[in-house]
Amino acid sequence: MMKHVLGAKCVRCGGEYPALPDTTTCPRCGGMLDIVYDYSAIAKEVNHKVMRDRQEQSMWRYLEYLPVEGLGKRPRLRVGWSPFYRSERLAGELGLQHLYIKDDGVNPTASLKDRASAMAVVKAEEAGANTIACSSTGNAASSLAGNAAAAGFPTYIFVPSRAPKGKVSQLMIFGAHVISVQGSYEDTFRLSQQAIEQYGWYNRNAAINPYLMEGKKTVALEIAEQLHWRMTDYVALSVGDGCTIAGVWKGFKDLYATGMIDRLPRLISVQAEGCCPLNRAIQTGEPWQPMEENTLADSIAVGVPRNADKALNAIRESNGIPVNVSDQEILDAAKLLGRTSGVFGEPAGVTGTAGVKKAVELGLIPSDASVVSIVTGNGLKDTPNAIKAAGEPVSIPPEMDALLDVMEKL
Amino acid sequence: MMKHVLGAKCVRCGGEYPALPDTTTCPRCGGMLDIVYDYSAIAKEVNHKVMRDRQEQSMWRYLEYLPVEGLGKRPRLRVGWSPFYRSERLAGELGLQHLYIKDDGVNPTASLKDRASAMAVVKAEEAGANTIACSSTGNAASSLAGNAAAAGFPTYIFVPSRAPKGKVSQLMIFGAHVISVQGSYEDTFRLSQQAIEQYGWYNRNAAINPYLMEGKKTVALEIAEQLHWRMTDYVALSVGDGCTIAGVWKGFKDLYATGMIDRLPRLISVQAEGCCPLNRAIQTGEPWQPMEENTLADSIAVGVPRNADKALNAIRESNGIPVNVSDQEILDAAKLLGRTSGVFGEPAGVTGTAGVKKAVELGLIPSDASVVSIVTGNGLKDTPNAIKAAGEPVSIPPEMDALLDVMEKL
Repeated sequence: MMKHVLGAKCVRCGGEYPALPDTTTCPRCGGMLDIVYDYSAIAKEVNHKVMRDRQEQSMWRYLEYLPVEGLGKRPRLRVGWSPFYRSERLAGELGLQHLYIKDDGVNPTASLKDRASAMAVVKAEEAGANTIACSSTGNAASSLAGNAAAAGFPTYIFVPSRAPKGKVSQLMIFGAHVISVQGSYEDTFRLSQQAIEQYGWYNRNAAINPYLMEGKKTVALEIAEQLHWRMTDYVALSVGDGCTIAGVWKGFKDLYATGMIDRLPRLISVQAEGCCPLNRAIQTGEPWQPMEENTLADSIAVGVPRNADKALNAIRESNGIPVNVSDQEILDAAKLLGRTSGVFGEPAGVTGTAGVKKAVELGLIPSDASVVSIVTGNGLKDTPNAIKAAGEPVSIPPEMDALLDVMEKL
Repeated sequence: MMKHVLGAKCVRCGGEYPALPDTTTCPRCGGMLDIVYDYSAIAKEVNHKVMRDRQEQSMWRYLEYLPVEGLGKRPRLRVGWSPFYRSERLAGELGLQHLYIKDDGVNPTASLKDRASAMAVVKAEEAGANTIACSSTGNAASSLAGNAAAAGFPTYIFVPSRAPKGKVSQLMIFGAHVISVQGSYEDTFRLSQQAIEQYGWYNRNAAINPYLMEGKKTVALEIAEQLHWRMTDYVALSVGDGCTIAGVWKGFKDLYATGMIDRLPRLISVQAEGCCPLNRAIQTGEPWQPMEENTLADSIAVGVPRNADKALNAIRESNGIPVNVSDQEILDAAKLLGRTSGVFGEPAGVTGTAGVKKAVELGLIPSDASVVSIVTGNGLKDTPNAIKAAGEPVSIPPEMDALLDVMEKL
């Protein structure tokens, strides 16, 4: 709640500002802001017992840790409190003893981004905004469109004209005003920023809005609670623009600072080999450099990460492990996760699992480690790549003899 | 729990049998069996207070009403306890005062069928089976594949060779043995039955297995509890082979018989105009006749409904209202639901809402009625039809002048 918020602090220049509902980037240097909390005040109100008795089954379960006045008066989708599974079979195949899956594909619009968009909708209401806007073709856009539709906010969503029709259709179904821009993603982003300024819309661009990360951190709060506050050694997830991994780290730090967990996990930052600017910066010790976007995992194909500062801080502070995986390893992980656990993730959704597999194989993590792998989006978002991963079934004529033949081979 | 189960009774000839884990159809007449409970025993254990204090957040919350010994030892996906929303904006557009949405597309494999498949997996373990099988191309198959994968059961799933690749890929991702049969759906079903007999696999065909409906009924139990046990006047849903509407009715009757609700809703049975054998039977008073399968709502394109007896009983007993809707009305409902509520349903998933709209327009239900509309499956299961429903976005060059022009028109 806002009474626990001390302010907003620039992660680049350290400038401090009040945390207003429509606060954006640092007015001095343009850096991203980070919301700062009064942890001792939170710790006075929250403990394990308080949480055990709490009824709310959504991301808003953790109100004391969230930068909102309240939840407003508008209807909400039920975001968060997603399933958490222990998978012994997956652990076995990975050569690990303790492996947990956090399935964030089971969210109203089927990705972890619902957490950020739900937060954006609440802050937009606080800010007295009438309309919310962003530029994106992916899960940020669909989650904004869905969460805003439930709340009755009109949305303007800017997409580059190359955006896949299926994703655009989801936006249209939710009644967003979709502006297809005949140009690159950069052109599209620029036009959206101009329009937001001109019309005074609420800004849900993750490169700008410091509250989105605070929504995303709820996945970490849930993981800790679903582990009964006994943290694992590692938490693995895919990394694109960096906002999610920064949010996850913030969540764990919040819990640690308030005495809810007694140790922090190391983060396993998994990127695609063909697009790994953040992991490369960690591995080389150099500043990050833009990269091409050569991966089929579209949700993390981000050559110019917009939350690089926060993401690199998170990986370094956690003594994190960067792992890069090939597209084939991503496709293999989709099958592995589905077959052993019944969880169907989109390519970026299973990239974390691909990274865990590789980290074990490379000896980067020991086999007696405990690991959580976050699945960030639902496989139904990208069935063409599921087909690529899954292969073709056996085909037979409708006769028992043909089946018997097949059964012998299987 | 099984101590509350009295037995299984044929809905056609009235024959009574013990409820064994692998009980199928009536050995005398081939009719579907119905599981019979000792309601007074349930009523002694369950009341509103007991439910209020219960922690379990899944379909297994209602163990006293379910025909299982326990939940076995295998891992499970978290099925059920899906979101329930009051939507004033949708109510307003429909001309109703009270409209609720039960979003069962937010389930592990994204449809209500997860409830039936989760039940099948538990009963298969009770029966000591090693393998589970079914024939289907749709949500029954994907939900079986996913729930069985989590539990570590191998599955054999028979699909006709015309099955869409996207749906087959979901099965392959979950590691099912998929047998693509070069023939019609009838050929496929017949081969699956032969194979099930030959190999002793556990049978998850809804035409055969009486427990599946008991899984599905949990959606009704949840609706009643999410309404704080104050039932609405109507509950609307799409109807295909009849198993779901029969399950929903069974759930409400169970609650009524045990004093948990004090009245029963009327069911609104919504079918596609191009494939409405059950509604036609209700409307004409004649026995049901097979129909062509002319609708884009593939999950309810069932010309030969396999649970006709139970479904017709349910509609008649509830003094139900049959409503048939066109494919265009289904597509319109997808947009209406998305735009007003942020819920994205597949065509069969929004057919219930299309039926509510039509029922109000035709004066079949009064405007002061309270209605629940069940969304049975996620729109991500069928993005081509979402595209058909949603239309195209506005396309402009990346210039502010072009945007200003568009904004004036919007």
